[in-house]
Amino acid sequence: MIEKRNTISVEQAREVLCNQITHLPVERKIVTEALNQVLQEPVFAPFPAPYFRRSGYDGFAITEADDGNYPIRLHVVAEVPCGKTYDKPLNPGETVRIMTGAKVPDNAAKIIMLEQSRNADKENEIILINTQKSSNITEIGAEFAKGDLLLDRGHILNAGSISLLSSFGIHEVQVIKKPKVAILSTGSELISAGNPLPDGKIYNSNQPLLENLLKVHHAEICVAEQLPDNYEDTKKRLLELTEIADLIITTGGVSVGDYDFMADIAKQEAELLFNKIQMRPGSPTTGMWLNQTLIIALSGNPGACFTGFYLLVEPVLATLMGKDTTATTKVRAKMASDYTKNNGYDRFLRGTYRLSDEGEYLVDLVGSDMSSALGNLHLTTCLFKIPRGQVGKFKGEEVEAWLLSSK
Amino acid sequence: MIEKRNTISVEQAREVLCNQITHLPVERKIVTEALNQVLQEPVFAPFPAPYFRRSGYDGFAITEADDGNYPIRLHVVAEVPCGKTYDKPLNPGETVRIMTGAKVPDNAAKIIMLEQSRNADKENEIILINTQKSSNITEIGAEFAKGDLLLDRGHILNAGSISLLSSFGIHEVQVIKKPKVAILSTGSELISAGNPLPDGKIYNSNQPLLENLLKVHHAEICVAEQLPDNYEDTKKRLLELTEIADLIITTGGVSVGDYDFMADIAKQEAELLFNKIQMRPGSPTTGMWLNQTLIIALSGNPGACFTGFYLLVEPVLATLMGKDTTATTKVRAKMASDYTKNNGYDRFLRGTYRLSDEGEYLVDLVGSDMSSALGNLHLTTCLFKIPRGQVGKFKGEEVEAWLLSSK
Repeated sequence: MIEKRNTISVEQAREVLCNQITHLPVERKIVTEALNQVLQEPVFAPFPAPYFRRSGYDGFAITEADDGNYPIRLHVVAEVPCGKTYDKPLNPGETVRIMTGAKVPDNAAKIIMLEQSRNADKENEIILINTQKSSNITEIGAEFAKGDLLLDRGHILNAGSISLLSSFGIHEVQVIKKPKVAILSTGSELISAGNPLPDGKIYNSNQPLLENLLKVHHAEICVAEQLPDNYEDTKKRLLELTEIADLIITTGGVSVGDYDFMADIAKQEAELLFNKIQMRPGSPTTGMWLNQTLIIALSGNPGACFTGFYLLVEPVLATLMGKDTTATTKVRAKMASDYTKNNGYDRFLRGTYRLSDEGEYLVDLVGSDMSSALGNLHLTTCLFKIPRGQVGKFKGEEVEAWLLSSK
Repeated sequence: MIEKRNTISVEQAREVLCNQITHLPVERKIVTEALNQVLQEPVFAPFPAPYFRRSGYDGFAITEADDGNYPIRLHVVAEVPCGKTYDKPLNPGETVRIMTGAKVPDNAAKIIMLEQSRNADKENEIILINTQKSSNITEIGAEFAKGDLLLDRGHILNAGSISLLSSFGIHEVQVIKKPKVAILSTGSELISAGNPLPDGKIYNSNQPLLENLLKVHHAEICVAEQLPDNYEDTKKRLLELTEIADLIITTGGVSVGDYDFMADIAKQEAELLFNKIQMRPGSPTTGMWLNQTLIIALSGNPGACFTGFYLLVEPVLATLMGKDTTATTKVRAKMASDYTKNNGYDRFLRGTYRLSDEGEYLVDLVGSDMSSALGNLHLTTCLFKIPRGQVGKFKGEEVEAWLLSSK
């Protein structure tokens, strides 16, 4: 009557999932719209930066020949605001009024700052009082030579790197596509928020949870819907979703009950990867391939769904996105207080962390440890692990912990 | 010829900006679409959670009268999957087959797990082998009583709290609006990426920088455009933008040069808040009110634009959004190496940080300290301050630092 399942560790489950997939295909994308996507080509400077000799100050460009015997009186032959050029040779005795960031005439040797100038009584003349130590000119290629590596393959684009690419006029770039994820919440008991609640039914909270966790982790949600417990309908919909989604996440139906159709589908229709993980909450979490699409079937318990997202889904998303690190940072931490429940499985507790004065992460349980608890997910900033077979962990004992990305 | 400006500290500038504004108006929003917005009402549980006695396991619900003299043989009168109910009284000698999460019949006292059952030879009968310590029933209100505070005013909605609200069927919620921000990059030298680059002009890199920093900080960009240096056009466009934006950020034109029209507009058309901050880079950064809209006019130098965003714009965004903390975390840090340039102004350097084994943040300069440098913005994970009037800071000396939110 009770099905026996083979268990694997959460690390093994994560490996099984991530080792069977690779990053998604590449797309050409407009740079300014590629935030958080992974660059799939190295990008080199198409020209030096700056590509012209750039004035560092508002002032007067002078030739080398004039740079002595101050005060000097020079003839102002032009004004060069930013974006304009003075293309004639600058002769001794001549100067151009030049603005910060403007192109310095080719044979100018120095910019004398505006502060060192005095109006002459004659129009188109200026008196420069004193020289300056520096040329105040940024030479061509001072920051980047042509061909310098700007960003390497694998870089995750952020505001700074988008700005850098833009400064070289690079408009489009090869990046790894964002994963399209389908969410399917299963359960005849589920009602969507905003609707009346018949007795015995519950509002669907896992779907909004997953939708927003996916948003935070920069995935694209292609479908988010719920289905009653029905083998044929669920199978049919899953097969349809495999045609449009890069990854399917389901909730519910993974246990060994009579209505746990997701567990049956995994065995009968799909290539089962695992259906029992040595962890609480979420031990019946199931992984499978269906029609060349990975399905991670999370438990319907909110705590298990949340924990499963961070321990299993997020690493898969990172792999699909071509990121070599997950958004969840594993750290060593110490228990801020005792937690002394025994368990045959590793227990992943929802907690909060703080950095002690000694630079240690102190972790503490937040709210209830029940997998059905809903009231602590929004307060959780870390997960930490009570290893199986122990009486728990006491205050000050070391534990493994994972700091969660929350924004 | 040179205008003298009154200087204020960056802390004063931030205060001047943030003290003159308050959070934006409230809007009613669908909960699942309100990620990262601030709740403007406390939310109480509209019903207890769970609101029915919930079975913790797959098994058999029995009356108190039958809970003894195991093994017992009971008559299975119904099957209760999730979302269904058994509304008749459960009599001694009767049991219902019940699933995890389903509603327990009113006068059932305990759930005997499926593992403790054995098929009887007679149809509609079951043999239960042993009792269990726990009732395996989650009582009404075990997690939340009706009227309990779920989330307080001021809470920033995350995936967990959206899930929590959804579990109570709460579909809409009062939140503070997201700021609509207009970006206006000024400068006749600016060309957009993807276009040919005439001599002396440069590609606009500040606008993509600000656009993406704003995305990361959950603001809405209502306009992002560039204008040549022209007093009347810039003034006209700024006035138009004040009609649609909650905040305007400009770049360029804030210095004292002949084409720095933003500086002139601030004095002639607007209520000037400040136009000189004791900081490098970005000392001419200007704050003003124009037509009841706040304008932060950043320097056109990329480093100054980046630093100004974190030091001045981000705190303003947080205030407009009703957040009582900024996304930038101020910490005490130590210099990882020497930085020995003197300056009359506080210098905010772009750096990286790491946590030492002793739990101290060690900060180090990343790339060039020039305000015109572009090649380090994407690597910057912190800013740190070299106070004015010092010869710099030596390795191991304490500095103020700000860890930047980058995602």
